[in-house]
Amino acid sequence: MQDKEPQRPFILVTNDDGIHAPGLRKLIDLMREFGDVVVVAPDKPQSGMAHAITVSVPLRLRKIHEEEGYSEYSCNGTPVDSVKLGEKVILRKRPDLVVSGINHGSNASINIVYSGTMAAVIEATIDGIPAIGFSLLDYSHKADFSAVDDYVRVITRNVLENGLPEGVCLNVNIPAVSREVIRGIKVCRQSRGRWDEEFEERLDPHSRYYYWLTGVFLNGDAARGSDAWALSNNYISVVPVQIDFTAYKALAAIKKWKMDVQE
Amino acid sequence: MQDKEPQRPFILVTNDDGIHAPGLRKLIDLMREFGDVVVVAPDKPQSGMAHAITVSVPLRLRKIHEEEGYSEYSCNGTPVDSVKLGEKVILRKRPDLVVSGINHGSNASINIVYSGTMAAVIEATIDGIPAIGFSLLDYSHKADFSAVDDYVRVITRNVLENGLPEGVCLNVNIPAVSREVIRGIKVCRQSRGRWDEEFEERLDPHSRYYYWLTGVFLNGDAARGSDAWALSNNYISVVPVQIDFTAYKALAAIKKWKMDVQE
Repeated sequence: MQDKEPQRPFILVTNDDGIHAPGLRKLIDLMREFGDVVVVAPDKPQSGMAHAITVSVPLRLRKIHEEEGYSEYSCNGTPVDSVKLGEKVILRKRPDLVVSGINHGSNASINIVYSGTMAAVIEATIDGIPAIGFSLLDYSHKADFSAVDDYVRVITRNVLENGLPEGVCLNVNIPAVSREVIRGIKVCRQSRGRWDEEFEERLDPHSRYYYWLTGVFLNGDAARGSDAWALSNNYISVVPVQIDFTAYKALAAIKKWKMDVQE
Repeated sequence: MQDKEPQRPFILVTNDDGIHAPGLRKLIDLMREFGDVVVVAPDKPQSGMAHAITVSVPLRLRKIHEEEGYSEYSCNGTPVDSVKLGEKVILRKRPDLVVSGINHGSNASINIVYSGTMAAVIEATIDGIPAIGFSLLDYSHKADFSAVDDYVRVITRNVLENGLPEGVCLNVNIPAVSREVIRGIKVCRQSRGRWDEEFEERLDPHSRYYYWLTGVFLNGDAARGSDAWALSNNYISVVPVQIDFTAYKALAAIKKWKMDVQE
């Protein structure tokens, strides 16, 4: 038997807050403890871009840094573009793990639908790569990431060791509280909630109206077992997320509808 | 008892191919048979925008047409922005139904993840409004929508009469074949599939590389009961879609992971 070290995993890191976000720097530092790292991240903030892909303008990549076991690129695309470019142009192979974040702000509950962070994770899952999205519940650029280290490590170690079921990724959200206050990790379901949007109407100097999207989050469901419950009780929430959107429970009822069309 | 007509439903129509797309015009004509219609659609094509929302530039609305029971607006945002603006700025109330499309191109299988058409539908579902996305499997601007009428009608009528389960919307895809060839409607599940992306690398006049996203769709699953099977057998596929992305089947296994963190 050879006394060879097991090969270090190959980890692709991205985010949606852009290449300069402190949350990305924190995630890069933690991932370099586990393996060789390639970073491909948007060159500007891409919050709210969800699963958008760039089809109408050409994509560009910029190499920012390269050393043994670590390289870093920015691109002019979305988080999903970043994953695609990382896999197909830079690595030209599948990474062992894709991680996204650490997002500045929550991606719990319905926020997953709007999230570029989680879209990058879902994109990797479509390609059969284990993937995790990390988010801290603090929107500020100056968010304090000092409490997250051991939790990001233990979740990452579990995914690398156990793998994930086919078509499933993880949505990890971390309450914005100090290390002593965090009570541990809860594996839970996505809670029901929604944004109650308001548009702020303004008049421009040319007397034309324009609108800024604002809103408040309405948490309609903080039952035990949901991510909203976990987070409001100072647990880190881990929601396994699937990419099959079929509402299986609704199939039988809708199959009974009369949908014959006359010839 | 009053002999009053039942109130006509109020229908919000949008799409992701933009206000000028023939598929939108077809859907508007059909919806006006059912109720009063307000159209709010992007002023330019928004394919691939998924669930993106506009947060970094102000939104603008342009009134294009208004008459009794019908009005039409374009906006500079995404399909999801269009739904939000329609609800909050134009209607200032919930419509009875939101429909999106008719998309030029498939939103079956994994395409739902990238789809602006279906994102608009999911956005309405989050707000508790019954919603349907319609797509024709022909990307061309000159796609032939002549076969769809009776099928769009029967599905719309069923949703208006039966409603939809909470948190569930419909993803309807129509094969690009003539009316005689369509065999009917199948209620089915989302098939597994993915895009195998390629990036076409080019050199610009300033000797810098750029990349165009291209790819081929790999259908890894055409089992009976899936939307891919239905469509390839000339059925119209109707997939009930849920907005809870929790992988419930994965919860138990992941709860067994050792994720204790030392104090």
